[in-house]
Amino acid sequence: MLVVMQHGATQAQVDGVVRTIEEMGYQARAMPGAQRTAVGLVGNDGRVDSSRIEALEGVAQVIHVSQPYKQVSREWRPENTIVTIAPGVAFGGDEIPVIAGPCSVESEEQILAAARAVRDAGAVALRGGAFKPRSSPYAFQGLGRKGLELLAIAREETGLAIVTEAMDDEGAHLVAEFADCIQIGARNMQNYSLLRSVGRIGKPVLLKRGLAATINDLLLSAEYILAEGNSQVILCERGVRSFDPAVRNMFDLTAVPLVHKLSHLPIIADPSHGTGLRDKVTPMARAAIAAGADGVMVEVHPTPERALSDGGQSLYPDQFASLVRELRAIAGAIGRTLAVQPGTRSAARV
Amino acid sequence: MLVVMQHGATQAQVDGVVRTIEEMGYQARAMPGAQRTAVGLVGNDGRVDSSRIEALEGVAQVIHVSQPYKQVSREWRPENTIVTIAPGVAFGGDEIPVIAGPCSVESEEQILAAARAVRDAGAVALRGGAFKPRSSPYAFQGLGRKGLELLAIAREETGLAIVTEAMDDEGAHLVAEFADCIQIGARNMQNYSLLRSVGRIGKPVLLKRGLAATINDLLLSAEYILAEGNSQVILCERGVRSFDPAVRNMFDLTAVPLVHKLSHLPIIADPSHGTGLRDKVTPMARAAIAAGADGVMVEVHPTPERALSDGGQSLYPDQFASLVRELRAIAGAIGRTLAVQPGTRSAARV
Amino acid sequence: MLVVMQHGATQAQVDGVVRTIEEMGYQARAMPGAQRTAVGLVGNDGRVDSSRIEALEGVAQVIHVSQPYKQVSREWRPENTIVTIAPGVAFGGDEIPVIAGPCSVESEEQILAAARAVRDAGAVALRGGAFKPRSSPYAFQGLGRKGLELLAIAREETGLAIVTEAMDDEGAHLVAEFADCIQIGARNMQNYSLLRSVGRIGKPVLLKRGLAATINDLLLSAEYILAEGNSQVILCERGVRSFDPAVRNMFDLTAVPLVHKLSHLPIIADPSHGTGLRDKVTPMARAAIAAGADGVMVEVHPTPERALSDGGQSLYPDQFASLVRELRAIAGAIGRTLAVQPGTRSAARV
Amino acid sequence: MLVVMQHGATQAQVDGVVRTIEEMGYQARAMPGAQRTAVGLVGNDGRVDSSRIEALEGVAQVIHVSQPYKQVSREWRPENTIVTIAPGVAFGGDEIPVIAGPCSVESEEQILAAARAVRDAGAVALRGGAFKPRSSPYAFQGLGRKGLELLAIAREETGLAIVTEAMDDEGAHLVAEFADCIQIGARNMQNYSLLRSVGRIGKPVLLKRGLAATINDLLLSAEYILAEGNSQVILCERGVRSFDPAVRNMFDLTAVPLVHKLSHLPIIADPSHGTGLRDKVTPMARAAIAAGADGVMVEVHPTPERALSDGGQSLYPDQFASLVRELRAIAGAIGRTLAVQPGTRSAARV
Repeated sequence: MLVVMQHGATQAQVDGVVRTIEEMGYQARAMPGAQRTAVGLVGNDGRVDSSRIEALEGVAQVIHVSQPYKQVSREWRPENTIVTIAPGVAFGGDEIPVIAGPCSVESEEQILAAARAVRDAGAVALRGGAFKPRSSPYAFQGLGRKGLELLAIAREETGLAIVTEAMDDEGAHLVAEFADCIQIGARNMQNYSLLRSVGRIGKPVLLKRGLAATINDLLLSAEYILAEGNSQVILCERGVRSFDPAVRNMFDLTAVPLVHKLSHLPIIADPSHGTGLRDKVTPMARAAIAAGADGVMVEVHPTPERALSDGGQSLYPDQFASLVRELRAIAGAIGRTLAVQPGTRSAARV
Repeated sequence: MLVVMQHGATQAQVDGVVRTIEEMGYQARAMPGAQRTAVGLVGNDGRVDSSRIEALEGVAQVIHVSQPYKQVSREWRPENTIVTIAPGVAFGGDEIPVIAGPCSVESEEQILAAARAVRDAGAVALRGGAFKPRSSPYAFQGLGRKGLELLAIAREETGLAIVTEAMDDEGAHLVAEFADCIQIGARNMQNYSLLRSVGRIGKPVLLKRGLAATINDLLLSAEYILAEGNSQVILCERGVRSFDPAVRNMFDLTAVPLVHKLSHLPIIADPSHGTGLRDKVTPMARAAIAAGADGVMVEVHPTPERALSDGGQSLYPDQFASLVRELRAIAGAIGRTLAVQPGTRSAARV
Repeated sequence: MLVVMQHGATQAQVDGVVRTIEEMGYQARAMPGAQRTAVGLVGNDGRVDSSRIEALEGVAQVIHVSQPYKQVSREWRPENTIVTIAPGVAFGGDEIPVIAGPCSVESEEQILAAARAVRDAGAVALRGGAFKPRSSPYAFQGLGRKGLELLAIAREETGLAIVTEAMDDEGAHLVAEFADCIQIGARNMQNYSLLRSVGRIGKPVLLKRGLAATINDLLLSAEYILAEGNSQVILCERGVRSFDPAVRNMFDLTAVPLVHKLSHLPIIADPSHGTGLRDKVTPMARAAIAAGADGVMVEVHPTPERALSDGGQSLYPDQFASLVRELRAIAGAIGRTLAVQPGTRSAARV
Repeated sequence: MLVVMQHGATQAQVDGVVRTIEEMGYQARAMPGAQRTAVGLVGNDGRVDSSRIEALEGVAQVIHVSQPYKQVSREWRPENTIVTIAPGVAFGGDEIPVIAGPCSVESEEQILAAARAVRDAGAVALRGGAFKPRSSPYAFQGLGRKGLELLAIAREETGLAIVTEAMDDEGAHLVAEFADCIQIGARNMQNYSLLRSVGRIGKPVLLKRGLAATINDLLLSAEYILAEGNSQVILCERGVRSFDPAVRNMFDLTAVPLVHKLSHLPIIADPSHGTGLRDKVTPMARAAIAAGADGVMVEVHPTPERALSDGGQSLYPDQFASLVRELRAIAGAIGRTLAVQPGTRSAARV
């Protein structure tokens, strides 16, 4: 940590900073400059609260040199973490799993139709919301426990792994009972009580980036889960708020190489929420794989025009099938492959 | 709601939109234009899910004309809602309460010193976190229940109303036991489980705007609370994410007149988080009152340079005292007054 | 400047950074830390191009400690610069001038009606575009030279100082001939050829903040003008791009105290563009004065519903008159006054 | 255009809107709704200035249904425009040209080394700035005319087409003399005088997206060029301002499919400015091709650690060569090819 003093700070003020740093149990190293003095704090273990120093007289700015997170950092663990949510469905290795399915579970018929369609096209995991965080309290909020039961039936029927969202502690325990991976949605990325809860449950977690979260914020939220002893965390880029009303969100794919550099955790991308527009999903899913994403998550509905939510950004099953073919070719172009369901390996390669 | 068809949409596509609208139970009204046809949906009760229509063939765009919220709307209730959290501490009328206190409750000595200082300077409510949502799991997370007990002692001693944050359902019940107003922090603004919980508890709620929340999002989150039967909601502008690293957040004071036009709920402003810099708090608190805010919430610490959190944006007690004098003058300039503690009315006017 | 090395950077890489800094003519000071080494560059005169260092092996990040601007800095000149554009119309002192007028000059009748109305209400300068930067090439682009001539007539008639925009070098010379202050619009804030041009012309310049400009960017653009020898620069906050479609721009009033701390130049605020909505102009103009702005610039049109541009954000003359009364009271509450036309001082105080 | 009236607007106010629309020469169509009345404006030719209507009594909001641009629109011209800047260097068809080179032209030796390296790796056009828009007036501003002459020598030597930036009218004429394509930088995207100037010159133009420009703004700026009779415009995504300091800009690749849907103009991507970090350039260049970009523009320097500008985001020649191989594979995966220099077709395929 570097404490930059104001231009014209007095020696007494510099001494005050040095003394405070030493009181906090660290070493201080003053560095006089042409325009202003800086004081380095040496020995930062990631627990220094800079606010105490920012409040001192004569301090212009505190600059953080160390990363504020630890266990999620690639400096802490250089090799990729591979998160396996079900046999053959592993994130972070050379194989890239595709997760697909409807925004919400609506009925047994709907979720089974969706599951069969996405499996046949090449997906290895099924998404579908049972608990839906909706901006409006009057919008469809999901089938709840019944939705989870229908997802379990779909898994039974298709062999797909299940990824579905939890919105609170109680729901997280319920989701853990039925699903292979607990999703934390963008709006709850900084719901620290929920992060601690899924940390303790110990199931794999899919953590979506918040609407205005920096990569640093995303990694700190993941750190909450790892700090509880659960390192099975998959990060997910799903678009952030922007000034351009032409899209629902701005899909920030640079997050993929950024996370790969800073952390050992896998990161996937969700081009459906990332763009919010059906005809943008296909090119941006391709771009995600080309950027190095460890998976993609795509909304597919058997009949989007009848969907209870997100119909406008859901692919038709045949659009999804042709997308998977393109993704397979792009993965190949960068030396990776799409994951295939165990037992169907040869067929899927065709 | 207005459905804009693509240029060159066929009559069959227009008919498809009309039929779907009618199936959903509303009236459709086609409006051919020079460049493209639009179809109006008449009778929108705020529950229309546009995604189903966005997914139809030939649709270019769906434009929402009605507001998606209801009970929070000024069209639903034209007169201001006055939220009274304690005797003499009412938000939304001509009198403007000032809430002040430290970021976190740290000790009995600290909170009592803070409470006495802010009361003497003119505050009528005390802030102070017992449950702290911190970006890092390793930062100070608050004293929990013990912190609430200390706040209760401070109320006993000073007569100040207590405002403090809850982060989950369990915490909300605990806060409701000890405090006068439950704060929902920016990071939890779209934690719908928590919003429903505080809606059911029925205590006054201070709802802070999320880091990337539009005014529409903020009002929809408030709608969650009102939908549970609790209309005692105070909104709070506290800065949003921006591209300028010069400040922690961008303080969007236009939120004040925007909310006043759209909703009957009171809105206050928090210039401490809104700017993140001590020397910006005073001018921006003044600006908040001038913009018409129904209250301000300011971080004040007896010894900011020893604060466990947010020391760099906390005012010294004497800075706060001189701020309150300026706020009183500005309130007077626009025909309002600062609220004063019952029984001290004449003194405070001096 | 501080060069932060990667965790695990080799001694040879650290030496490479030290050597490069010395080759560039500065001193290097290595500072080993618990997690990583940093190297300070001492003697930065504001001309260091960090890119060369960023490109070196083992460098994680380059942190700028010095400000990149010089002449605009308060460290360069501690006292406020007072920019006087006409007798009695000075920005940066205790008196606060109000600039008002229509978006565009449309006709002699219109600009004279506007000028008289705003002068009678208390403005001391007249705004009005002759060259209009419009997003669409098909929108009204202003009357050009004819518009400047009409502004000169309005000055003759009312005694108001004239502020109007130039969009290119040729236009800047023309504006300089007719007006008292050359406005550079937000879209041209980083049009460096134009900045240099108005720097050389030497007339007072009103420099509006760009739509996505940080305060640092704004000050650097001002530095271009000062670097040509013209220190008569008034900065202007006029709203920046945001994610909320509820307003045209997000009005960032914290820019006012930020600039006051960093620079000696005056800063005014334009709540008309800053909000884009007529009924938000009054509260936000008040907020600007309360935040410490050195002036406000407000769009006023004799008949907004007939305006050729920006009618929706223009005040009616009587709204403006009552706004000025409120501004006067708020200025008084913080120990300042509104500027009044020379010779009318006693009358305007009524 | 749709004019939404306030809830409770009177019949007289609705009539006022109808009358104004008719006065402006269009048809008005009132559409009463459950909550509020809307009035459609029929016959909009793209020239309606909505501000006049926004200013009317009782109007809540004006919604634009038609696109504000015309000649750039795909509705105006359904087939792709192919912009050919030199033999074999065509943007908008199946072949994808790669533009590469240093940030700035620094010397004959440097530009020739760069040109040979990028040509050998597979680029078909050379970039390199002679006029550099720099945030600081004290930074290297380019060699000016001398830089253009060196670019001409590099073209002579390598056969590469030349793309270089102009910052003002005078510079644009000079660039037109020496280069094959005039670049308008992000900071000048709304410098309408310059847009008109390059529209009249008639050379191909590479128009970069501004730092806070919506896609709509970008297309409107292109419209300025087309309105002068020059339809040889290539758009360029180069990152926009964001809240995340982890990257210099947020690279918004969804711009590519968005522009392809709305306009017939080609769009390329610049991952060097789009990310600002060398190790992010390769993955994001791949993503750009996968998203459908009609070209990429990459900064390559023979010795980045000695570059006078942008060294930290410039690729080493061997990094660029391996990038081009990956781009070729990804282009193939989506049915396109990279453009190759005429006469080297068979060699480049190796």
